[in-house]
Amino acid sequence: MGILEGKKGIIFGALDENSIAWKVAEKAKSEGAEFILSNAPVALRMGKIQELGEKCNSKVIPADATSLEDLNALIGEAKETYGGIDFVLHSIGMSPNVRKSKPYTDLNYDFFLKTLDISALSFHKVMQVAYNMNAINDWGSVLALSYIAAQRSFPGYDDMAEAKSVLESIARSFGFRYGKKANVRVNTVSQSPTMTTAGSGIAGFDSFYHYADKMSPLGNATSDSCAAFCVAMFSDYTRMVTMQNLYHDGGFSSVGVSKEIMELVKQD
Amino acid sequence: MGILEGKKGIIFGALDENSIAWKVAEKAKSEGAEFILSNAPVALRMGKIQELGEKCNSKVIPADATSLEDLNALIGEAKETYGGIDFVLHSIGMSPNVRKSKPYTDLNYDFFLKTLDISALSFHKVMQVAYNMNAINDWGSVLALSYIAAQRSFPGYDDMAEAKSVLESIARSFGFRYGKKANVRVNTVSQSPTMTTAGSGIAGFDSFYHYADKMSPLGNATSDSCAAFCVAMFSDYTRMVTMQNLYHDGGFSSVGVSKEIMELVKQD
Amino acid sequence: MGILEGKKGIIFGALDENSIAWKVAEKAKSEGAEFILSNAPVALRMGKIQELGEKCNSKVIPADATSLEDLNALIGEAKETYGGIDFVLHSIGMSPNVRKSKPYTDLNYDFFLKTLDISALSFHKVMQVAYNMNAINDWGSVLALSYIAAQRSFPGYDDMAEAKSVLESIARSFGFRYGKKANVRVNTVSQSPTMTTAGSGIAGFDSFYHYADKMSPLGNATSDSCAAFCVAMFSDYTRMVTMQNLYHDGGFSSVGVSKEIMELVKQD
Amino acid sequence: MGILEGKKGIIFGALDENSIAWKVAEKAKSEGAEFILSNAPVALRMGKIQELGEKCNSKVIPADATSLEDLNALIGEAKETYGGIDFVLHSIGMSPNVRKSKPYTDLNYDFFLKTLDISALSFHKVMQVAYNMNAINDWGSVLALSYIAAQRSFPGYDDMAEAKSVLESIARSFGFRYGKKANVRVNTVSQSPTMTTAGSGIAGFDSFYHYADKMSPLGNATSDSCAAFCVAMFSDYTRMVTMQNLYHDGGFSSVGVSKEIMELVKQD
Repeated sequence: MGILEGKKGIIFGALDENSIAWKVAEKAKSEGAEFILSNAPVALRMGKIQELGEKCNSKVIPADATSLEDLNALIGEAKETYGGIDFVLHSIGMSPNVRKSKPYTDLNYDFFLKTLDISALSFHKVMQVAYNMNAINDWGSVLALSYIAAQRSFPGYDDMAEAKSVLESIARSFGFRYGKKANVRVNTVSQSPTMTTAGSGIAGFDSFYHYADKMSPLGNATSDSCAAFCVAMFSDYTRMVTMQNLYHDGGFSSVGVSKEIMELVKQD
Repeated sequence: MGILEGKKGIIFGALDENSIAWKVAEKAKSEGAEFILSNAPVALRMGKIQELGEKCNSKVIPADATSLEDLNALIGEAKETYGGIDFVLHSIGMSPNVRKSKPYTDLNYDFFLKTLDISALSFHKVMQVAYNMNAINDWGSVLALSYIAAQRSFPGYDDMAEAKSVLESIARSFGFRYGKKANVRVNTVSQSPTMTTAGSGIAGFDSFYHYADKMSPLGNATSDSCAAFCVAMFSDYTRMVTMQNLYHDGGFSSVGVSKEIMELVKQD
Repeated sequence: MGILEGKKGIIFGALDENSIAWKVAEKAKSEGAEFILSNAPVALRMGKIQELGEKCNSKVIPADATSLEDLNALIGEAKETYGGIDFVLHSIGMSPNVRKSKPYTDLNYDFFLKTLDISALSFHKVMQVAYNMNAINDWGSVLALSYIAAQRSFPGYDDMAEAKSVLESIARSFGFRYGKKANVRVNTVSQSPTMTTAGSGIAGFDSFYHYADKMSPLGNATSDSCAAFCVAMFSDYTRMVTMQNLYHDGGFSSVGVSKEIMELVKQD
Repeated sequence: MGILEGKKGIIFGALDENSIAWKVAEKAKSEGAEFILSNAPVALRMGKIQELGEKCNSKVIPADATSLEDLNALIGEAKETYGGIDFVLHSIGMSPNVRKSKPYTDLNYDFFLKTLDISALSFHKVMQVAYNMNAINDWGSVLALSYIAAQRSFPGYDDMAEAKSVLESIARSFGFRYGKKANVRVNTVSQSPTMTTAGSGIAGFDSFYHYADKMSPLGNATSDSCAAFCVAMFSDYTRMVTMQNLYHDGGFSSVGVSKEIMELVKQD
C-alpha cells in the first residue's frame, strides 16, 4: 500500500518524460494517488501529457495558470470529481527575457512582469481559487518547485531569480493563511539543476549542471529523487512542515566550496 | 568635514518630514553630500518636498519611478549636473491591494503586478537606466529600503511581502552585475516599522509598532537612526558590503521572543 | 509494508513515553525498522527505556554519548548485529547552566563546555566513530533534533542556543564528508517546543509553549508528528536532502507575528 | 574630526601588520579613538604589538582571553583608565585540530573544546566580565570577526566552522541581554578570506583565496576595508544594528557562481 493511498491531487506542469512533474505523477500514481494533470494549452500540444494521462489513468485538463477563469474551471472540476483535493504540485516557470536572451541589465519590463505572472503569481492564483472554493481538504499539501537563484546570484538565470523569490514568498504568505483556515501546508522545494527540457534551454546550462554536481557531496538530485521527495511532502509523514523552502539539492546550498572545484582553481 | 564630502546622489521617496528619505536627505546634506530629490508627480503635489529641496539646496525633479522615460530624464540630468553620481536611495513602495484593503486571499492581480512594478521593478529600472548610461561612479552605493515581511509573514502586509522579496532579489542580482562593471555596491536596508505617513496607513500599524518595539532589545529603530545608517552605507567606510539585506531593526530579526511579550502571553 | 522495511538503526535519547526519541522508536518499529536503543546509564536507571525495548523487540545498550569508548562499543555491536546501519537519531541535550539556573550573563564556563560536549560534540563523536568503522550503509540517514534558538534569542534557553548552533554546524560539516564517502546524509530537525520531560524542566516553558502555539498557523508540532517526519527522513523518499536544518514547527520559523499575539499586544 | 572622536575601546588580537585587528587599531586611531591593545602573552612575544602600541599611543595589556582572571584585570584597568568603554573588537581564533592537521573526521575532542573555548567562549567571557562590571557605556558596540564557514562547509576549515557558529550565536544571545541592559550592540563581521599570518597557516589557503576572489563581484575585501567597516560599526552611525552577522565579503555570500568559475568548469 502506498503512502498516498486515497489522496487526490492536481499536478501542474508535466510536459514530457524529462519533466519533474511527469516523474511526480508517476511516483504519486505508484503510491496510490489519483490526480488531474494540467498544463497550458500550448504545452499540451507540444508535449506528451496525454500519454502520461493514459498511463496514470488521469484526466488531462488544459489551463493557462495565469487565467482565473481557467483555474476556476479546473479546480471546480477537481472538486466535483474528488469532493476535495489533498495535494497540488506547481511546476510552472517561464521567462520571456530568458527566452529572448535579454541580459539582466537590459531587461524588457513587460516581459519581466510576464515572468512574474507566469512563474509566481500563478501559484497565488491556484491557491486563491482553491481557498475561496474550499477545494483543498484539511491537512492538504501544496508544493511549488523553486531554485536557489532566489537566494544567490547565478549567471543566465536572469529575472527567474526574482520569480523564484516571489514564489517562495507566496508560499510563506499563503501558507500562513491556508494553515489557519484548514491546516493546509504550503512549501517550496528548491531543487538541483535538472536536465529537463526547460532547464536545458538556459544558456550554459551544461557547465552549470556540472558545477553544481561537483559542489554537492551527493551530486545533483535527479528528477526521480525529487519526485520521491515531493510525494513524501504530500504524505501524512510531513503534516507539520509549512511555509518552508526545502533544499533538495544533494547538499549544494550548504557547501562553500568543494575540493573538486578547488582543484580547478588551483590548476588555473 | 562630513563622511559624504564631495559625494553626489539621487534620493527617491521623500514626502514629508516623517519620511525616511527626508531624514536621509537632511543627514546626507549635513555630511557634505549634494543630491537631487525625486518623487512621483502626485507625491510632489501632496507632500512638502519643495521645502526640503530649499533646505538642502537641491533640485527637485518629478519622476514616476516606473517610467523609463522619466528615469532617463532624471538620471540623465543628474549625470550632466554632477558628471557621475555616487549614491542612490530608493524609498518607494505602494500596494493598491493594501490601499483597497483587499485581503491576501482575495487579491486583485492587476493590483498585485502594480505593487511589484512600483515597489520593486522601479528599483531595477533605476539601476538599468543608470548602468546603461554609466551614470554611477566607481565604488558608488545603491540602497533600497526593505522590510522583514520579505522573510516572515505579517498580517496586513499583504502583497508588499512579495514586493520586498523582489526588491531584495534585485539587489543581489543587479549587485552582482554592477559590482563587476564598476565596483558599485547594491544593498537593501530592512528597517524597523517606522511612523511614516505611509507606514501609519497600514491597518493595525500601531499595535504592530508596539509589538516590534517590545521584541527588539534596542527598541524600534527611528527614521533618524536609519538615516545615519544609510549615510554610513553611502560612505567609503562600507565599500565591500554588497548584495546584502541589512537589518536595521534594534535586533528584532534575531529575537525569538522577549520577556515582555511572554508576560502578555502569561496573563492571557 | 512500512517505509523503513529492512532498515536498521540506532536511536539515542528515549527516556519515557514523552520523549521524541520514544515516539520515533515506536513509529520506526511500526514502519518495519529494527534498531538498538541507547541512552546514558543514568537515564536508563531513571527512565522506562527497558519497557520500550521490550515493546520494540530492541536491545537497549547504555552509552555515555560523550565517551568514545562507550560509542565504540555500542556502534561496534550495532555493526556486528546488523552488518551495517541505515539510520541514527541523536536526541541528546543537557545544560548544567540551565539546570542550575545560571543566567546567560553569569554562566559557569566549565558547565558551558559540558553543555557543548553533551549536546553537540556527542553528535560529532557518534559520526566519527561510525565513519571510521564504516558502520553506516550507503545512503544512510543521520538526524539530530535541534531548536530555533540556534537562530534567534529566547529567554531561558541559555547556552543551549550555542549547543544547537554547534549541532547544526556539525550536520553541515560532517554531512559534507559523509556524503562524499558513502552518500550518507546528515540533517537536523528544528522541532516546535515539545512537552517532553526535558522540555518542561525549563523555567517558563509553559507560557513559551503557548506563545509558539499561537504564532504557528498549524500550532506546535507534537512529538508524534515529529516522529513521523523523522521516519520520512530515514526513508528512501528523502535521499538527496543533506546538510540541512529542517523546520518541523507548524510554520513558526516563518511567522513575523500572528493576529493572536497582536490581540494581546493591543489589549496591553 | 574622526567618527570615533572621544570613543574608548579595547582591541583584541593584533599580532603584526597583516592582522585585521592591527588595521582596525590604526584606523580607529586615525578616527580619534583611544584604546587598549590586548593579546595572549605568547602572541605578545612573537608579534610586534608593542610597535603598534607606540604608534597608537596605546597601552598593551597581555591577557589570555580564556582566563577570567586576566579579563577581569584587563577590563578593570580599561574601566579605570577611561571611566567606561565604547567599543570592543574580538579578533581571536585558534584551532589545535587545524594546527595539527587533524582531518574533520578524526578530530581530537580535547582540541575541539579548546578551539571553542579560545575562539568563541572567549567572546562570551569578555562580555560577561564587562557586563557584570558595567564596563561598557550606553550605546557601546561590540564586534567579533567571523567567517562564512559558520553557514557553509569549506575544506580545511575543520572545527573552526563550529567555533564561528558559536561565536555568531553568542553575538545574538548576549546582544539581546546587553541591549536590554545598556543599549550595547553586539555583532559579528563575516569577512572575506584575508592574507593574515593566521589565515595563511591554513592548508590550501592560497587557492581558496583566489576562488573567493573570483566569486565575489568586488573581489575579496582587504583587511584595510574591513578596518574601515569595523570603525563604522563602532561609530554612532550604526547604533541600531545588533545581533547580526554582517557579511563584509565583496558579495561572496550571495553569489551562486560567477562566470569566472564557470569558465574553469567548462574547460575541465
